[in-house]
Amino acid sequence: MTGVPAQRPIGVAVLGHGTVGAEVVRIIRDDALDLQARIGAPLEIRGVAVRTVSPERGVPVELLTTDAESLVTRDDVDIVVELIGGIELPRKLVRAALDAGKSVVTANKALLAANTGELAEAAEARNADLYFEAAVAGAIPVIRPLTQSLAGDRVDRVIGIVNGTTNFILSAMDETGADYAETLAEASRLGYAEADPTADVEGYDAASKAAILASIAFHTRVSASDVYREGITHITAADLTSARALNCTVKLLAICERVTGPDGRDRVSARVYPALVPREHPLASVSGAFNAVVVEAESSGRLMFYGQGAGGAPTASAVMGDVVMAARNRVQGGRGPRESKYAKLEIAPMSDIITRYYVNLQVADRAGVLSAVAAEFATRGVSISAVRQEGAGNGARLVVLTHQATDRALSDTVAALDKLESVTAVTSVLRLEGSAE
Amino acid sequence: MTGVPAQRPIGVAVLGHGTVGAEVVRIIRDDALDLQARIGAPLEIRGVAVRTVSPERGVPVELLTTDAESLVTRDDVDIVVELIGGIELPRKLVRAALDAGKSVVTANKALLAANTGELAEAAEARNADLYFEAAVAGAIPVIRPLTQSLAGDRVDRVIGIVNGTTNFILSAMDETGADYAETLAEASRLGYAEADPTADVEGYDAASKAAILASIAFHTRVSASDVYREGITHITAADLTSARALNCTVKLLAICERVTGPDGRDRVSARVYPALVPREHPLASVSGAFNAVVVEAESSGRLMFYGQGAGGAPTASAVMGDVVMAARNRVQGGRGPRESKYAKLEIAPMSDIITRYYVNLQVADRAGVLSAVAAEFATRGVSISAVRQEGAGNGARLVVLTHQATDRALSDTVAALDKLESVTAVTSVLRLEGSAE
Repeated sequence: MTGVPAQRPIGVAVLGHGTVGAEVVRIIRDDALDLQARIGAPLEIRGVAVRTVSPERGVPVELLTTDAESLVTRDDVDIVVELIGGIELPRKLVRAALDAGKSVVTANKALLAANTGELAEAAEARNADLYFEAAVAGAIPVIRPLTQSLAGDRVDRVIGIVNGTTNFILSAMDETGADYAETLAEASRLGYAEADPTADVEGYDAASKAAILASIAFHTRVSASDVYREGITHITAADLTSARALNCTVKLLAICERVTGPDGRDRVSARVYPALVPREHPLASVSGAFNAVVVEAESSGRLMFYGQGAGGAPTASAVMGDVVMAARNRVQGGRGPRESKYAKLEIAPMSDIITRYYVNLQVADRAGVLSAVAAEFATRGVSISAVRQEGAGNGARLVVLTHQATDRALSDTVAALDKLESVTAVTSVLRLEGSAE
Repeated sequence: MTGVPAQRPIGVAVLGHGTVGAEVVRIIRDDALDLQARIGAPLEIRGVAVRTVSPERGVPVELLTTDAESLVTRDDVDIVVELIGGIELPRKLVRAALDAGKSVVTANKALLAANTGELAEAAEARNADLYFEAAVAGAIPVIRPLTQSLAGDRVDRVIGIVNGTTNFILSAMDETGADYAETLAEASRLGYAEADPTADVEGYDAASKAAILASIAFHTRVSASDVYREGITHITAADLTSARALNCTVKLLAICERVTGPDGRDRVSARVYPALVPREHPLASVSGAFNAVVVEAESSGRLMFYGQGAGGAPTASAVMGDVVMAARNRVQGGRGPRESKYAKLEIAPMSDIITRYYVNLQVADRAGVLSAVAAEFATRGVSISAVRQEGAGNGARLVVLTHQATDRALSDTVAALDKLESVTAVTSVLRLEGSAE
C-alpha cells in the first residue's frame, strides 16, 4: 500500500463476550499490526455488548456496554460481529446493523437458517457484506470454497459431519460399546455436550447448517424447516455392534443433494439423520469432536475439508477471516459475493429420496419368518442386499440390508413389517449412506 | 439482481486449448445460463489462442487464433485465462494483459513461482485481479482459504502432497514393492507421468507450489529458487520396506513453515523432499494421484483439504471459480484480495531447519560397528531414537532413526559416517516428518 494515504480506522462492534467473543476481542487487540497490514487500515473495537458490565473480563471497561442496539448503529462502527446466540435478539440487532449499512459477521447458524432471505436482502439493499464462515464447521473453510472456489462448477452433493457433540458421542459409542445415555453423560462431563443437549442430539444444529450449505451449494433459499431431521437419541449400542459387523460405523450426517424431480427438473434435498457409513468412506474416520465436509461437484470431483468444528479459538479464526475480508472491502470499495438464489429449486420431499436401509427386527424363531419378511420388501419393490440372523428363540433377530429404494417404499415396508405376526418388534431402522450400490 | 439494468457481457480470452483449456471453453459454453446468473452478466469467449488453427477442436473456428498477443489486449476482453504452460511466453502475455487492465486467471505455477512479484505489481498498478487457485492442488480450494478464510489467523505450517505424479509413484511402490524405474514406467503407461517426467520427479513442480503457498501463508514473497528441493528418483524399494517396518510410508512433501531465526525473529522455510510419514498422519493415507494440504494455524488448529490435484476437469473447476469471481468483480466494481507481502520474512537456510533423519547404512558385520556409528551421532549432538540391524555378513545393514536435530548436524553426521571404515556405504538418507517427537 506504498503511497496510499493513511486509511481511517475500521470500527468493529462485537456482540457477545463468551468463548468466541473473548477470543475475537483478544485477536483484534493482540494481532493489531498484522491485521492492519492485511487490511490496509487499523481495526478498532468500538464496543463489546454484554448482558452485564463487569470489570474482570480482560477488556477495558469503557468498551463494555449493555446497549447493543445503540452500539450497532454508531457512526464509527463499520462491522458488527454477532456472537450472541438465540434468534430473536440477534435478528433484530443484525437487521438494524445491515439497515444502517454496516457489514455483519455472524457465527449464528440458527439465525441464518431461520432468516437467510430477510438478512440477505437487507445486506443487498445497503450493499453491505453478510459473512458467516463460522456458522458451519467452525474453523474449516466451507462457505467460502462453496461460494467462490466452486462458483464455476456444478455441485451435486455436500455431505458433512457438522456437529461435534453428536460425533463425539457416536465415536465414543463405537469405540467403547457403551450405550447412548452413558456416553452422553460422559460427553457432558468432558464439556462436549451442553447442559441441555437438545439442539445437538436432536439434530437441530446440524439441520441449520444443512440449510445454509444447501442454500449456497444450490443457489436456492433453503431454511431449517425445509430440512428433514432425525436425531441420535434412539441409537443403541446394538446398532453400533451391527454396524461394525457390516464394516460400517454410525455418523450423524448433514446431506445436501441435487436430485431429479418427477418432472425431470432438479430439486434440492436437505436432510440430517444418523446413518451407517462404510469404514472406507472418508467421513467414517472423522472421529471425536472433529468436523468434515465432503463436496462432490461435476468438474472438481470429490473434495474433503477437515478440521475443528467448534471451540472458541477455531470459531474465532473463521470469524476473523470474515472480519478481515469485510474490512478490506470497506477499505478498497466493493464487497464480497452476495446471496445467490437464482436457481430457486424446489425442495424434494423425503419420501422421494433414494437411500439404502438397515433394518433390525426381533422375530419369532420359526420356519417361514424370513420368507414372510422378504415378501414385504419384495411387494414394495425393495431389493434385499443381505440378511443375517442373530441369536435364536425369543431373542432371535434379523438384520436386513436393502439395496437403493425410495424412502417411501422403505418406510412403507417397515410399517408393514411392524404389523407382521412373526415380527415381535422393529428394533431399529437406519439409513446407509456413502456406499456404492 | 432485480431492477439492475442488463449488464454488458464479460469478455474472456483463453490462451491454450489443451485438456484444461478445452474443458474451460466447454464449461463457459455449456453452463452459460448458470454462469450468467452467478455473475450478473453473460460470459462471452472472445477468442482461444492456439498454436495452429484446426477445425476439429470443437470450438467455432472463428474463435481460434494464433495471435495471442493481440487477443489479450482486445478492448472487448475483460479476463485472460492463461493455460499455456512454460514461463517466457505466458509471462509476456500475462504481463501485457495486466498492463492493459485485464484480470488474469492462470494455472501456471512455474510462471507464478518465478515472477510473482512482477505480475502482482502489474495487477496492482491497474487494479486488476490476478487469480491462481488452479496453480496449486488442482480443484482443491487452497489459495482462497489461505488468503481469505485464514486472513485473521496466524499460519504456522502448510504441509502438502501437491504433486500427483510422484504421489502415484510412491503409493504404487508402497503397495507393490516394485522399484522406482519400474513404477515410473507403469505411471507413464497409465498417463500419470509425462514423457519427460523431470519437473515432477525432481520436485520442481512441487517446489513452485511450495513457493506460492509460502508466499500466501506468510505474507512474504517466496520464489521457486528460495525452496530447498530434492526429488524422488533415489527412492528405492528397500526404503519403502524400511519405512513400513517403522510404521511409516514415504511421501514427497511440500513444507512451508514459520521458524524462529537466531535473532529471535520469524523466518520462512520452504522445502520439498521425500520423507517418511507416520501411517497415522492424515497425509499418509492420501494415495494415488490425489493431493492434500494440511494447514496449521494458531487459532484454527489443523485443517486438511483433500481432492483431485490434477486433470482437465478438476483443474478447470478451479479456473472457472476464479473466472466467475473475476467477472463478478468486474460487474460489481472492486476486486479480490491483492498480494500481501508486508511481513517480508527472511528465508531460513535448510541447514537451520530442525527435522528427524532416517539413515540406512551398509556396514561391516563386526563388533564395535554400532558403537563407532553411534559416536558420530553423539559427537554432533544428534540423539538416536532407534537402531535396527538387518541382515548379517557383507549384507549387514543398520537402520538409524534420530530424534530432532538441525539439518546441519544431521548432514554433517551422515558425511562423517560415509568416511567411517566400518561403514561400507550410506545407502539411504530420508527425513521423517509429521511425528510427535
